[in-house]
Amino acid sequence: MPVGTAGTVKGMTQAQLEELGVQILLANTYHLYLRPGHEIIRELGGLHRFIGWPHPILTDSGGFQVMSLKSLGRVTEDGVWFKSHLDGSSHFLSPERAIEVQAALGADIIMTLDECVEYPSSHQALHRAVKLTGRWAGRAKEKLSALSSQLSKSEGARGWGLGTRETSLAAIKQSPEQGARCWGLGAREIPLAASTQPIASETKPRGQSPITNHPSPIPGLSLFGILQGGVDKDLRRESAEGLLELDFDGYAIGGLSVGEPKAEMYEVAQYTAQLLPRHRPRYLMGVGTPEDLVECVARGIDMFDCVMPTRNARNGCVFTSQGKVIIKNTRYARDESPLDPACECPVCRRYSRSYIRHLLVAGEMLGAILTTQHNLHFYIDRMRKIRQSLLFGVFAEFHSRVCAEP
Amino acid sequence: MPVGTAGTVKGMTQAQLEELGVQILLANTYHLYLRPGHEIIRELGGLHRFIGWPHPILTDSGGFQVMSLKSLGRVTEDGVWFKSHLDGSSHFLSPERAIEVQAALGADIIMTLDECVEYPSSHQALHRAVKLTGRWAGRAKEKLSALSSQLSKSEGARGWGLGTRETSLAAIKQSPEQGARCWGLGAREIPLAASTQPIASETKPRGQSPITNHPSPIPGLSLFGILQGGVDKDLRRESAEGLLELDFDGYAIGGLSVGEPKAEMYEVAQYTAQLLPRHRPRYLMGVGTPEDLVECVARGIDMFDCVMPTRNARNGCVFTSQGKVIIKNTRYARDESPLDPACECPVCRRYSRSYIRHLLVAGEMLGAILTTQHNLHFYIDRMRKIRQSLLFGVFAEFHSRVCAEP
Repeated sequence: MPVGTAGTVKGMTQAQLEELGVQILLANTYHLYLRPGHEIIRELGGLHRFIGWPHPILTDSGGFQVMSLKSLGRVTEDGVWFKSHLDGSSHFLSPERAIEVQAALGADIIMTLDECVEYPSSHQALHRAVKLTGRWAGRAKEKLSALSSQLSKSEGARGWGLGTRETSLAAIKQSPEQGARCWGLGAREIPLAASTQPIASETKPRGQSPITNHPSPIPGLSLFGILQGGVDKDLRRESAEGLLELDFDGYAIGGLSVGEPKAEMYEVAQYTAQLLPRHRPRYLMGVGTPEDLVECVARGIDMFDCVMPTRNARNGCVFTSQGKVIIKNTRYARDESPLDPACECPVCRRYSRSYIRHLLVAGEMLGAILTTQHNLHFYIDRMRKIRQSLLFGVFAEFHSRVCAEP
Repeated sequence: MPVGTAGTVKGMTQAQLEELGVQILLANTYHLYLRPGHEIIRELGGLHRFIGWPHPILTDSGGFQVMSLKSLGRVTEDGVWFKSHLDGSSHFLSPERAIEVQAALGADIIMTLDECVEYPSSHQALHRAVKLTGRWAGRAKEKLSALSSQLSKSEGARGWGLGTRETSLAAIKQSPEQGARCWGLGAREIPLAASTQPIASETKPRGQSPITNHPSPIPGLSLFGILQGGVDKDLRRESAEGLLELDFDGYAIGGLSVGEPKAEMYEVAQYTAQLLPRHRPRYLMGVGTPEDLVECVARGIDMFDCVMPTRNARNGCVFTSQGKVIIKNTRYARDESPLDPACECPVCRRYSRSYIRHLLVAGEMLGAILTTQHNLHFYIDRMRKIRQSLLFGVFAEFHSRVCAEP
């Protein structure tokens, strides 16, 4: 999922995202709540309509942003107090409020509020976050049920921006095959390692669409729970147990990719993924490099989001089949070749490294636009190839080939 | 002509420009000379190839930029000394050097170096600029002839970035009809006012392609002379006489739109246009508003360039059928309508004022991208409608209708 923090993937038009084959965007509840405000977006028919994106959207809960802006936030049992990075004003986000705001935005997949802790943290802090995040997950589910009753009684889903898209996730979900392709689920048949047994007993028959029996009370809206526990496997197991008891449409692994060594991240992602049911999407938040995508799918992950392709692009770092290229480097001043000679994206078919370097050096918007377009293509293409190799049963070979790349 | 100062129309991809129907871009010799340097662009096969634009390009001579950065420049008989706005380094631009640099860039239409004077200026200063610009125009023509001989003897046009495009202006020129449409020439049959007689005796038969007998010694390359003279009609006549004697592929009216009242600009544009031959393009530099385009075509102008659509866009000012809209205004925060309800551009078909306002307020790149795309569509569409009304003989009605608009 490309990251569209404030309701836009920086530098891309929605048409360009569609051309790249982007299926789903991530938007930040924290940012949209502060500006322009979720009530305005609700009044205007929800986020899809507001940003002109008739395809799936996932909104995070704001927990990660509050951690990132740590000096501005304070965690209590009830929720999180935080100060706006825009004007310093004070705001309170509870698990219930996070659901309300996300429902007002009208995303397809919404997240429970979690306490995301930094790395390294004490066992005590990690344990507290697991417990608190678990209690908050329960309150989030209850809030969504209450909201569901309220919606069916009164104004209906439309009043909340829900169900306004032409291509809703619900429609995708009704087609098991499309559903599986969309999520990469069901297609993953080659676990990298022998798995520990999932906690959840797989009473639901394999092969059945993972979607038809999703527990969310609102059609077309999925609620994902977020696991915490840092790099402590016992805490990850405890976090998983708590969430699985509540039963979510999908499960996100939070609190990774926050500074821990890569090997630990892989190990914990793998350990945690295998605790989660196969028939529900597993989402590793905030990951990662193009290599991470392959390594973590191999370890049981279905979904990712990361600012890396877009943020790196704006800083002049592009991903290629030959590794990273720092395009502002003087060596590219007369380089007529495309960013990646092996790439077929619209940028590599038209522009040279020398031109893109010139644009970035001159501070021209088009520099960031072109590097972003290329990097997103690289990521989307990487995921497309992963799905394809899974469907054709050749993921292990694909994985080996990617590992051998520079 | 949209302005692509540093080899890019700020915020637009070349594909988006093509979709908008842009036929020709203006690029700034001054800026490209300083960065990345015309020699690099020549080595890379010329500007068309460098920026990925296989359509016509016009480069200005740098005279206007030197005037804009007045404190950094000094005019002598030989040429202009100026200091780089990037690093303060000293550079010298002579009429010959301006031709060399533009030939290295490989544009389709290149301009003679002129001395552009500010408004208001003394009669003496204006007269000096007319005389100097005239002498410089002669030296520019001689330089182009010398370059032509040199090219045919040695490395060929390709070595100078010339003739590298698939769609060269020469090809357009060979088709009189296309040529006329491209330039708006030959189609203008309804002069707004009774014209004073052109100085140039129209010995060439009307109806003949204006292009087949163009005086430039290099195929596919056109050299335009630039008139000066401020708002003084006698000086304008003197400037025209000097340039017509030299015989250029086209004539540009410089030194207008530099602060003089609009009525004077219109009057001088009309007076000057009628001094110029009908069978050569007449280009009014740096003009103007959407209304100016109609008013000045009515007064005999064929070509324009202006930063207004793109610069205003970045500042949140959009042109619509209902007049200018300052989109950051709070009143548009909940406005679901498109920028211009009468517009069919890709922006107005997808996005609301509220979203675009949000993007601009949040400082998101997409805000400037969308307003630029819309404004360029408005300008390109305006010129398309002007050409169409000329071809169908209904320009006078079109002119009246536009004058009645807000």
